[in-house]
Amino acid sequence: MDKIEHIGIAVRDLEAAKGVYQNLLNTPVYKTETVETEHVITAFLQTGPNKIELLTATHPDSAIAKFIDKKGEGIHHIAFAVADIRAEMTRLKAEGFTLLSDEPKPGADNKLVCFVHPKSANGVLIELCQEIA
Amino acid sequence: MDKIEHIGIAVRDLEAAKGVYQNLLNTPVYKTETVETEHVITAFLQTGPNKIELLTATHPDSAIAKFIDKKGEGIHHIAFAVADIRAEMTRLKAEGFTLLSDEPKPGADNKLVCFVHPKSANGVLIELCQEIA
Repeated sequence: MDKIEHIGIAVRDLEAAKGVYQNLLNTPVYKTETVETEHVITAFLQTGPNKIELLTATHPDSAIAKFIDKKGEGIHHIAFAVADIRAEMTRLKAEGFTLLSDEPKPGADNKLVCFVHPKSANGVLIELCQEIA
Repeated sequence: MDKIEHIGIAVRDLEAAKGVYQNLLNTPVYKTETVETEHVITAFLQTGPNKIELLTATHPDSAIAKFIDKKGEGIHHIAFAVADIRAEMTRLKAEGFTLLSDEPKPGADNKLVCFVHPKSANGVLIELCQEIA
């Protein structure tokens, strides 16, 4: 794994959260993107080599809506950048980690993504993401 | 803020979690350190420019023990590297953020640290940390 690509934070009110994180990190949101398949709107801020991804739900069935209902706002996942997502998926399966999909899926920010089950990683939802060339 | 310095993950069994994260990140724990004042033992793994800090409690009064009792294992905080922690604290106070201390405190890994209240940041406990020269 190359670095923390981003941390995903589940928020109720995206516009309010954008204001908070712009003030916190002292940098503007540089991109807002809707991921229709996941029923979320995302907003990205850059801090050095890493990003913060704010996520809000557009539908009650969204994983983000369910997360907030259960746990409240807060950190939803950590994403690690990988050069070859299929190779990492194969390696992690061999190490005994449970993956949430057998194939990478298209995610926000021009990425192929795959999630590792939080039960495999001390309660942390881990995302692998590979930039689409 | 310069980058995500580390993500702190609260775990029950540090030795087991070290094994999991070494396998996940495919890199060894490079340092284990006790922070007596916080009643925690920490273990660090490097992933590119960022670190993962595993934290376990050594006393029921530790903030990590209380966190796990309330929420279970999982992400406890995000730490951002700053060049001048006092200047960042002054800037954030002026922006209306609530800080958990008026002065920076010594933390793990040779750092001065200060925390921002999760109520100020959509449920996320934010740490500022400055390398001690």
